[in-house]
Amino acid sequence: MRVLGVDPGLTRCGVGVVEGAPGRPLRMVGVGVVRTPADAETGQRLLLVEQGMERWLDEHRPDLVAVERVFAQHNVRTVMGTAQASAVAMLCATRRGIPVTLHTPSEVKAAVTGSGRADKAQVTAMVQRLLRLDAPPKPADAADALALAICHIWRGGATNRIEAAVRAARSTPSNGTLKGTSR
Amino acid sequence: MRVLGVDPGLTRCGVGVVEGAPGRPLRMVGVGVVRTPADAETGQRLLLVEQGMERWLDEHRPDLVAVERVFAQHNVRTVMGTAQASAVAMLCATRRGIPVTLHTPSEVKAAVTGSGRADKAQVTAMVQRLLRLDAPPKPADAADALALAICHIWRGGATNRIEAAVRAARSTPSNGTLKGTSR
Repeated sequence: MRVLGVDPGLTRCGVGVVEGAPGRPLRMVGVGVVRTPADAETGQRLLLVEQGMERWLDEHRPDLVAVERVFAQHNVRTVMGTAQASAVAMLCATRRGIPVTLHTPSEVKAAVTGSGRADKAQVTAMVQRLLRLDAPPKPADAADALALAICHIWRGGATNRIEAAVRAARSTPSNGTLKGTSR
Repeated sequence: MRVLGVDPGLTRCGVGVVEGAPGRPLRMVGVGVVRTPADAETGQRLLLVEQGMERWLDEHRPDLVAVERVFAQHNVRTVMGTAQASAVAMLCATRRGIPVTLHTPSEVKAAVTGSGRADKAQVTAMVQRLLRLDAPPKPADAADALALAICHIWRGGATNRIEAAVRAARSTPSNGTLKGTSR
């Protein structure tokens, strides 16, 4: 399974592609940051995020896109930009029929370090170890995008099977005939 | 000038097209709401907002898109959806090279009623009067989108001239040669 992790942001949008399956070694396929100038108009910045996402989707053809779930936090201005950049990432994936999943920051931290309250250094160290990299991933703030992709590969399997089962149960008519439940 | 006003929302995204110029009668060209099902996945809902926006832009070819500026308010869930829907609206317009402006709810209320604290009924009544409609615009929650478009037509003229002057001043090289300042 190849997953594109997206750590959304209007100024810096972290992207990381990881290949793997639960219980198998993980492999980093690519990592980077889509940047937009802070002094550009919001519409223009969203367009640059879209173009960046399209390039990453074109180049790496992921099976799934994992996006960090955005919460309203302390800094209202930042949260709006984050919500808007995440919307563009979800839109680009959905337009291509690529499934999107959302993971909270603490789910991601717990998945790669064992603790939902791990700090940035710990997440980066574990990402480097899990992907067997010689050095911490660069740019540094793209480590979270890789962590998101790893989180999905490890957690997503179970979650996806539960969701598929729920969908299957819902779409099963009362006469018991199954339809459209294969993935 | 033909303006498409967008009152962003993930469940209901109000859209209204108004034609006019400062000091001239206004004319309603179209009004409606782009809806997405609350139980669909966010990516799917954003895709439906995008498709709805594209239809409105195709049909009405506005000169400008006026979007309500989103603030973090009480209801965090709603604000995230609003920020994401507004991102899609801005993206669709910018992709076509259509300028986007943002207006706050109180700017819009002040523009159409004279008071930044007017209630919904007052805004709807003034929208009906200013557009010389026989009845309040339907659906009711699309009145705000029309108010946004009216607000831009009345306020935008002055704002645009100021912005153009600032851009002109910035892009003027020290030798005094003007370049690229015409709109």
